[in-house]
Amino acid sequence: MTTFKSRDIISIKDFSKDELLYLLDLSGKVENGDHSALLNGRILANLFFEPSTRTRLSFESAMRRLGGSVIGFDEVESTSTVKGESLSDSVKIIEGYCDVIVLRHFWEGSARLAAESVDIPVINAGDGANQHPTQTFLDLYTIMKTKGGLEGLNVGFLGDLKYGRTVHSLAHALSHFNSKMYFISPPTLKMPEDIIDELNEKNVSFVELDSLEEISKEIDILYCTRIQKERFADPIEYEMVKGFSRLSKPLLDELGVKKDLKVLHPLPRVDELDSSLDTSPYGAYFQQARNGIPVRKAILLSVLGAIS
Amino acid sequence: MTTFKSRDIISIKDFSKDELLYLLDLSGKVENGDHSALLNGRILANLFFEPSTRTRLSFESAMRRLGGSVIGFDEVESTSTVKGESLSDSVKIIEGYCDVIVLRHFWEGSARLAAESVDIPVINAGDGANQHPTQTFLDLYTIMKTKGGLEGLNVGFLGDLKYGRTVHSLAHALSHFNSKMYFISPPTLKMPEDIIDELNEKNVSFVELDSLEEISKEIDILYCTRIQKERFADPIEYEMVKGFSRLSKPLLDELGVKKDLKVLHPLPRVDELDSSLDTSPYGAYFQQARNGIPVRKAILLSVLGAIS
Amino acid sequence: MTTFKSRDIISIKDFSKDELLYLLDLSGKVENGDHSALLNGRILANLFFEPSTRTRLSFESAMRRLGGSVIGFDEVESTSTVKGESLSDSVKIIEGYCDVIVLRHFWEGSARLAAESVDIPVINAGDGANQHPTQTFLDLYTIMKTKGGLEGLNVGFLGDLKYGRTVHSLAHALSHFNSKMYFISPPTLKMPEDIIDELNEKNVSFVELDSLEEISKEIDILYCTRIQKERFADPIEYEMVKGFSRLSKPLLDELGVKKDLKVLHPLPRVDELDSSLDTSPYGAYFQQARNGIPVRKAILLSVLGAIS
Repeated sequence: MTTFKSRDIISIKDFSKDELLYLLDLSGKVENGDHSALLNGRILANLFFEPSTRTRLSFESAMRRLGGSVIGFDEVESTSTVKGESLSDSVKIIEGYCDVIVLRHFWEGSARLAAESVDIPVINAGDGANQHPTQTFLDLYTIMKTKGGLEGLNVGFLGDLKYGRTVHSLAHALSHFNSKMYFISPPTLKMPEDIIDELNEKNVSFVELDSLEEISKEIDILYCTRIQKERFADPIEYEMVKGFSRLSKPLLDELGVKKDLKVLHPLPRVDELDSSLDTSPYGAYFQQARNGIPVRKAILLSVLGAIS
Repeated sequence: MTTFKSRDIISIKDFSKDELLYLLDLSGKVENGDHSALLNGRILANLFFEPSTRTRLSFESAMRRLGGSVIGFDEVESTSTVKGESLSDSVKIIEGYCDVIVLRHFWEGSARLAAESVDIPVINAGDGANQHPTQTFLDLYTIMKTKGGLEGLNVGFLGDLKYGRTVHSLAHALSHFNSKMYFISPPTLKMPEDIIDELNEKNVSFVELDSLEEISKEIDILYCTRIQKERFADPIEYEMVKGFSRLSKPLLDELGVKKDLKVLHPLPRVDELDSSLDTSPYGAYFQQARNGIPVRKAILLSVLGAIS
Repeated sequence: MTTFKSRDIISIKDFSKDELLYLLDLSGKVENGDHSALLNGRILANLFFEPSTRTRLSFESAMRRLGGSVIGFDEVESTSTVKGESLSDSVKIIEGYCDVIVLRHFWEGSARLAAESVDIPVINAGDGANQHPTQTFLDLYTIMKTKGGLEGLNVGFLGDLKYGRTVHSLAHALSHFNSKMYFISPPTLKMPEDIIDELNEKNVSFVELDSLEEISKEIDILYCTRIQKERFADPIEYEMVKGFSRLSKPLLDELGVKKDLKVLHPLPRVDELDSSLDTSPYGAYFQQARNGIPVRKAILLSVLGAIS
């Protein structure tokens, strides 16, 4: 029987297809059940060495909805790190104060290191540009809920595919499910070669494009990302791509997309999604953000052995 | 029947006299009752885009005393606002994590905008220089408790009447209750014209003065405010008014005030209230601060439909 | 009967030998008992005018493990102190929101002042360079647990004995228990004269040394501290002492220390304790950090009158 009891949640790559499905199924049960006292007396430590309010509050809400409580911090300045303490020492000490750790840290690999330093479960809430697995779980959960399943979907990825951590992880996860993928980006923001190589190795079907128009009628899911100014050394380069993907309901109607196309976005958005999408049948990104709660509840319940 | 269920608490001006009395009455019941489990499982999101520790802790304490829990943040730096996210998007996402939002924001009108963006109740904990309705509720509650009622009182307002948000709102609220008002300030810090116009329209009886002495024997309540240095472009102007209102027990005795005069202040004070007042019968400002708890409990209980 | 109900915990010097033993005994009972609901509905206010994440989280965890909840702040910038409010006013207002205050403040004497301003118990979590009594309680508790008792131990103090607040308090506390003390430091970082005078007055047996080697075979406990660069006006002086105490398992083995020697450290460490000590029988500092929980639980339970 699959169980995540005492398991660390570090990278989406650590999970088999069966394990992904197990957790998504569990998220559905949690969303529809009442588990409001299952984590009574348990403590989550939210260790945010850099701020990420949305993720922090989402974990905090999930934990409290289950009867547990939360301690933590949300910036490195208030920690012993500034006195030269190692991350390993910090988490070893905090291990004595809690039952599960959620870690956000600016170093790639930090979550794995933390997990190796303590005996309680560690959940990675973002380690630098590397992994943020609970985001991918909630992306998958949203796709599954809006489309009724994960198998054989046509999925477009739109925007910054080079730096976007979420698109890399989601492409990896969907490679288990016979997706056909469309990577739509400016030439300077294409999917990195290592992701492309991995997909080729797995015989995943994908196409790289520089415009949505060519495949707008094919796709079931359109996963958008924000193009972040701060990524560009040269401001002129940013100016060239910043307007690349501005979606609106009229535009999607005009492009003749499927009626049940769902647009996802990890948020925050700036101007890449027009507000006309918000209440249209296409817009699923606010629902997606809210799906963080059942998914994170399921993860907390399972790693703490309160459900299986 | 009056009920505040699902109601937003944005401005004191949104409340009729009956509604004010309903909430004050409810606050009294809450202060004397045991409601320690009525909000079990409910979550308050304390969204403080600027710090206000006293208000934040007061809401937090009220929520926890009722069995609920609290998530949130206390500075804009840690939010997605710095990535360009709109306030409307921020609250829409956080709506998925909680049952009620308390918002403190530096923009006038922010609370109304937030309330229009979400379906759960929003409580304004200060939107710029505009409104801070729960402060006014606790001011009224303190007056009612210390004087036995609100009708027909002689109320002095002393200090900075130009910039003081609390005095504007309290004057408005007391206009329902046949108050006679005395506005005592330096000439440069008088009540703004729009407030004066409003009071004239309502035929409220008021006088503008530049000294407490003339009416010291008349007043039942003396509401003081801090004169804030940071309001003055010209430091010399500040120097001219900074000592305007320094109250002490000996001074009030000497002025022959009523024995049951009560001095209120929204706090923090700097030097406008001498410590000799703290334990004198006049000083009611610490009690006033503590009245934030029953008032905020009553608001939380009523907007969440847990009491009526 | 000894009881700490409503008592402030300000300085280790306020406690008699019997009282120290009472609290240590209570900590043991708390560590082995189930008190998970004894503080239901109670609120702790964690007032950290300067950050100290470890101490803050430790109190927070202790309170939550007992069923209570926690409000507070962790930096002075977000408080009314920046508007000129006195500490006394701040705690008087917050007293209305909670049942017990834990105070961390950069002023010596601040905790005593706060305790005199309010009626609820105040626990000092560090007032400048002065006192941090719960640290000393957990140091004593760790010594008692690892050695089976406190009487007649040979205790080495190693590192910065001049500025180290914890070593001053621990030396004072151990003076009740017939300890023989060894103060091992560079000449520039010796125990301050007032501590030395106090120990002489009490006829405590102690020796000042500049090397561990001479007494390495004698000691039962070795209490180490970090030498903090920021204490030194002259960087050359720091360079001369910074490598003074670098302990490792091989070094202690080579020095022929007692097999049951325990090494303590208030943490964070930088490089004064090699990781080879962590899992060796000598290393007791992570256990020491975790002992903060039962000790702080015992203090909270006793000052709130929930146990005796």
